[in-house]
Amino acid sequence: MNKIILIGAGNVAHHLGLSLIDADHQILQVISKSKANAKHLAKKLNADFETELSKIKDADFALIAVNDDAIISVSNQIKNMPFAHTSGSVCLKKGGAFYPLQTFNKDIFLDLKKVPFCVSAKNKDLENTLLKVAKSISSKVYQIDEKQRRILHLAAVFACNFSNNMYAIAEGLLQKTDLDFEMLKPLIIETANKIKDFSPKSVQTGPAKRKDLQTIENQINLLEEEDLKNIYKLITNQIQK
Amino acid sequence: MNKIILIGAGNVAHHLGLSLIDADHQILQVISKSKANAKHLAKKLNADFETELSKIKDADFALIAVNDDAIISVSNQIKNMPFAHTSGSVCLKKGGAFYPLQTFNKDIFLDLKKVPFCVSAKNKDLENTLLKVAKSISSKVYQIDEKQRRILHLAAVFACNFSNNMYAIAEGLLQKTDLDFEMLKPLIIETANKIKDFSPKSVQTGPAKRKDLQTIENQINLLEEEDLKNIYKLITNQIQK
Repeated sequence: MNKIILIGAGNVAHHLGLSLIDADHQILQVISKSKANAKHLAKKLNADFETELSKIKDADFALIAVNDDAIISVSNQIKNMPFAHTSGSVCLKKGGAFYPLQTFNKDIFLDLKKVPFCVSAKNKDLENTLLKVAKSISSKVYQIDEKQRRILHLAAVFACNFSNNMYAIAEGLLQKTDLDFEMLKPLIIETANKIKDFSPKSVQTGPAKRKDLQTIENQINLLEEEDLKNIYKLITNQIQK
Repeated sequence: MNKIILIGAGNVAHHLGLSLIDADHQILQVISKSKANAKHLAKKLNADFETELSKIKDADFALIAVNDDAIISVSNQIKNMPFAHTSGSVCLKKGGAFYPLQTFNKDIFLDLKKVPFCVSAKNKDLENTLLKVAKSISSKVYQIDEKQRRILHLAAVFACNFSNNMYAIAEGLLQKTDLDFEMLKPLIIETANKIKDFSPKSVQTGPAKRKDLQTIENQINLLEEEDLKNIYKLITNQIQK
């Protein structure tokens, strides 16, 4: 059991906090610039809340689950204990990384047991603590270096954030034509499920893969927004390579 | 029960043929320019096979499941019966469309019962026949017009073909860094499953959505190929809009 300070009260802090107390760790304090968010999450975690980092308590370590752009400034203010951040991209000279490879929405339940956690720290004591904590909440814990973590996060942006944007573009096209997004759901689920057993490259389908040039031209013409035309052309070229 | 000629012996022809005979229709003949493919599929469907359209038999209708670019030329050679093609994009002056909204790989089993079928034809008799046949193999049959079908297919290209390409790009990045694509699978499945209950736009996450500008810049720098940098930038802009 570890005593942990949770910095941040957004999607990641929310899910990690709940999993950590489920695994019998103790969240001493939730610190967030937003008093409402800090208070709300602290209540769920049976923790104190605070809006100012200068009032941070003592604990085994602090978990920094804030936007990437704020991590350096937050970490520079923590002097009294080790810390780790939850970002896939940020590399710090001190502290560690405790990176859950998953997409988090506050109101969507997620079983962290199956979420890969990627852990690293320059200090071996901290690394061991982080590994133990990760293993207490997930069955898939990886010790990877910073370069690997950054590539993994980049790959996750393509595989998750960008594929979701493709769904959103499709949804927008259907809305304009009075078609129900429901129609596309079996296709989206089937496409994702295929990668359980097959390499995505090996199961690529569609006009680009088949080199149906007339269809490709027609589809570019059907798109009204210039940005969407450009995305269509670039990805089509990428598939054909 | 209908007597059907199947033109084409690729992924779509394969899956449709098997479903049609399961639903007690009869495939009289499989016609494909590739003798080996025609013979292989015909055997599975207990049908004759042929490589030349001039030798087409008589049946209730012909189902044209060939590459989009070949559909017009094939349809022009069918004089003895009604026909329908299986493409989301092609619009013909005659005949009908019998479009299964799904991604087909020859060796991956697919239950067509839950696949949306989009049917249309200018001739009402043909349309009724196609609707009946579609309903005999799927519980989700839609009668939509040509404009809607073309938009639906375009949306499917984004939601399926392009999201799969995002998976493939991610796979390529991991391979270069000696990381196992296995690590990304829970993330991909979670991302797709979310759209069962939520609008994709409402659950968008990631550096672009959070406007983590430093991370976005770092990730563009991490990408080595110019094409991938451009795809990253365009989709990031699209998410931020």
